[in-house]
Amino acid sequence: MSDDRSLTPQSEDFSAWYNEVVQRAELADYSPVRGSMVIRPWGYGIWERMQRALDDMFKETGHENAYFPLLIPMSFIEKEKEHVAGFRPELAVVTHAGGKELEEPLVIRPTSETMILEMYAKWVQSYRDLPILMNQWANVMRWEMRTRLFLRTAEFLWQEGHTAHATEAEAREETALILDVYRRFMENWICMPPVTGLKTESEKFAGAVESYSCEALMQDNKALQAGTSHFLGQNFAKAAGLTFQSEAGEEEYAWSTSWGVSTRLVGGMVMTHGDDAGLIVPPLLAPIQTVIVPIYRNDEERSATVAKAQEVAARLKDLGVRTKVDDRDHLNPGAKYYEWERKGVPFRIEVGPKDLEKGSLAIARRVIPEGEKRKIFVAEDEAIATHPQRLDEFQAALRERATRRREANSHRGVTDWGEMKEILEGEGGFVYTGWNGDPAVEERAKDELKATIRCIPGAEFRSDSAPTDCISGDGAAKHEVIWARSY
Amino acid sequence: MSDDRSLTPQSEDFSAWYNEVVQRAELADYSPVRGSMVIRPWGYGIWERMQRALDDMFKETGHENAYFPLLIPMSFIEKEKEHVAGFRPELAVVTHAGGKELEEPLVIRPTSETMILEMYAKWVQSYRDLPILMNQWANVMRWEMRTRLFLRTAEFLWQEGHTAHATEAEAREETALILDVYRRFMENWICMPPVTGLKTESEKFAGAVESYSCEALMQDNKALQAGTSHFLGQNFAKAAGLTFQSEAGEEEYAWSTSWGVSTRLVGGMVMTHGDDAGLIVPPLLAPIQTVIVPIYRNDEERSATVAKAQEVAARLKDLGVRTKVDDRDHLNPGAKYYEWERKGVPFRIEVGPKDLEKGSLAIARRVIPEGEKRKIFVAEDEAIATHPQRLDEFQAALRERATRRREANSHRGVTDWGEMKEILEGEGGFVYTGWNGDPAVEERAKDELKATIRCIPGAEFRSDSAPTDCISGDGAAKHEVIWARSY
Repeated sequence: MSDDRSLTPQSEDFSAWYNEVVQRAELADYSPVRGSMVIRPWGYGIWERMQRALDDMFKETGHENAYFPLLIPMSFIEKEKEHVAGFRPELAVVTHAGGKELEEPLVIRPTSETMILEMYAKWVQSYRDLPILMNQWANVMRWEMRTRLFLRTAEFLWQEGHTAHATEAEAREETALILDVYRRFMENWICMPPVTGLKTESEKFAGAVESYSCEALMQDNKALQAGTSHFLGQNFAKAAGLTFQSEAGEEEYAWSTSWGVSTRLVGGMVMTHGDDAGLIVPPLLAPIQTVIVPIYRNDEERSATVAKAQEVAARLKDLGVRTKVDDRDHLNPGAKYYEWERKGVPFRIEVGPKDLEKGSLAIARRVIPEGEKRKIFVAEDEAIATHPQRLDEFQAALRERATRRREANSHRGVTDWGEMKEILEGEGGFVYTGWNGDPAVEERAKDELKATIRCIPGAEFRSDSAPTDCISGDGAAKHEVIWARSY
Repeated sequence: MSDDRSLTPQSEDFSAWYNEVVQRAELADYSPVRGSMVIRPWGYGIWERMQRALDDMFKETGHENAYFPLLIPMSFIEKEKEHVAGFRPELAVVTHAGGKELEEPLVIRPTSETMILEMYAKWVQSYRDLPILMNQWANVMRWEMRTRLFLRTAEFLWQEGHTAHATEAEAREETALILDVYRRFMENWICMPPVTGLKTESEKFAGAVESYSCEALMQDNKALQAGTSHFLGQNFAKAAGLTFQSEAGEEEYAWSTSWGVSTRLVGGMVMTHGDDAGLIVPPLLAPIQTVIVPIYRNDEERSATVAKAQEVAARLKDLGVRTKVDDRDHLNPGAKYYEWERKGVPFRIEVGPKDLEKGSLAIARRVIPEGEKRKIFVAEDEAIATHPQRLDEFQAALRERATRRREANSHRGVTDWGEMKEILEGEGGFVYTGWNGDPAVEERAKDELKATIRCIPGAEFRSDSAPTDCISGDGAAKHEVIWARSY
């Protein structure tokens, strides 16, 4: 069916715009189970490309995939005290199976540290068995009260990496390595350049020694925690009894890390690039990079333009461009334009009788370069030959635009609480300030400003001259931090 | 650690051999949760290659991936009467979540027809919205009493395709198309050539009109149902209210199909090819196709042979061969040979000081061609240049060997119950007979012979002259059928 209702404008209600675009671009839909969504082929196709790219990066850095059980005995989760305190309220519990009540309830994994380290403990004897560098692609379940498609759902898809090492230094290196893999992936594939840094004590993963995160800034100037990499010290190794014999012959606990990104990244992509016409998908992630629409008024024109569209599609496919000819007969071209724009396909090529005469193609860009018109007309051979480059440039332009937007909405050197309040209650964005390290300041910001410290930025994201006093006015700054409202 | 214990021979106890080889080749391990296994990187790497190949075949035939919820309301499962009767005893049930008892219990999907068709009903209005051709890669849960690694576990990984069509003919075509995709995949990738055919009423999927299956013969001459494709008629469409407006403007129920293969295929691969030394992995599925072992007695020899091994590995990788140099220093070459043979790597290349002198490589084959020795010695350049072809030939040889074995153990034209009994209680295999269509004959065979009708073979697998009488002695045959003991 043709759906030509327009979307709620972003400026009017960003949240309504988001929900509409996710559903009407057919990325996902609500399911009959509260908090669980259905990822439709267009959304799953984008996720598949994210998976493939990340998986390649994990493998290049020495990791292997495996698969661990969905169900975890309640007693495992309880072994690490901070861990269970963090996750208990969100657990889904299987109490009956095979027609009987279970002796011990099983929980659907909210994350798998406890199960995976239990298995590592079985496999590891000596330092020669370390490091173990494994990842799994899996579904997990966290019973959330308020859910939003992709951003916060009870069930979600993710990858969770779990590594075990003989030394603290190695585990710390791994934590940093993966944080960098995530950053590069988000920049280069999603065109969603994050700031990376350390989470504060109050925001870290339940059971971690330190958590690092990628924080991306959405178009409504709220932050999205888009990926996390945790240094777990020996906490989970102790809970699971994961020991090894060191080279010196001593029995020691291993050091572990865990790290994950999820289908939340699809939501991040939507909120980084989309506009009032719908989605904008970076070419590297787009299931269809270029749609070709034949234009005709009668059967004769139809057969000529459809034939040309197919010929152009075949030539583009030979160049590696994911191309689709939309030759549906019951929709007019305008309806097709709306649909593919809403789905965020980077380029549309129109083939009409006049284009055939002239030997040229009309190329409509999903994002119009400043000062230009949507369409350009290019001689057919040139249009095809230069199309891969056009896709690369589109990808680069999205990345640059998002980076500029993040920087334009990063407020550095803020020293006054009132100023921070004005920014966060107004246009929003990242607010860089000094912080004395006191959680009471975080509490106050949460209450007064609905904002949190997103991270203590890593070296490359720190200001050249950060404030030396805490934003609270109470003492010297221990760290430069970034505040924002967030998803 | 080096593990040089030998495996229980197949001839002594096939079942013990299977369990040992799966664990000691590090394909999988038992988990602390009854009936759930851990798929280790070597097993998961094989599964990943199966997934990739099948996924490509699904996409070539017009299917798209999506993802549907893990949890299904109990009331959905109950909508199709035969379906719930079949699956109720195996359900795992979530009764509590988010710290509260749920109003309606949710089951972990044992299969997703009921949920997926509910969603299709939401998306489909007219015949223009059909067909829907979707697949998902997912975990499912069936609480089995007796479990075996890969073959029968409470949780397993699979793909489940679900399609909806406007006509019965289209749905039947889809069912046949996928059965053929499965057959070709099993033949060409796993080198496990199945017989395909129709399941009898008593063996079909709960809720289907007709079920078709791929039945492969294992080395212990038991059958493995390795994949199924179901024609569901309008049964599930009626349960879910999946209707559409036809071209003629009538409200009609859609016709649906479903089809799946699972990690059980990994078990099938093990039992089709493995031997007393361990696993044998077809090259197309092997995470490592060729391992290179440098041989040395001192540091000088070590640096020379390791350097050569790495050079050979680099050249093989350039030719697309998945290669690994095993330069672990704490294991002697013999221990490495054992380990890689047990893991089923198709080829091992040894590089020792004498090989360096001669400019040749020693190539050890995991399967030794009849009348030959394990190793051949080939001049280095030739050995490398011809290696991809050697892998192709290895793949073809495994396929031929398995086909010969299946045919040698297929007993056609059996007309006497006593003869069938003798075969099934003796060497086993596929027994082709006539059958009058009476389920009582199936019951008798189950009780007396522990055997079932695996399928009514499709046209290409039927005997040239099948028996005209039923194997029971009771009347004429309606069908030729294949009996076997099975997993």
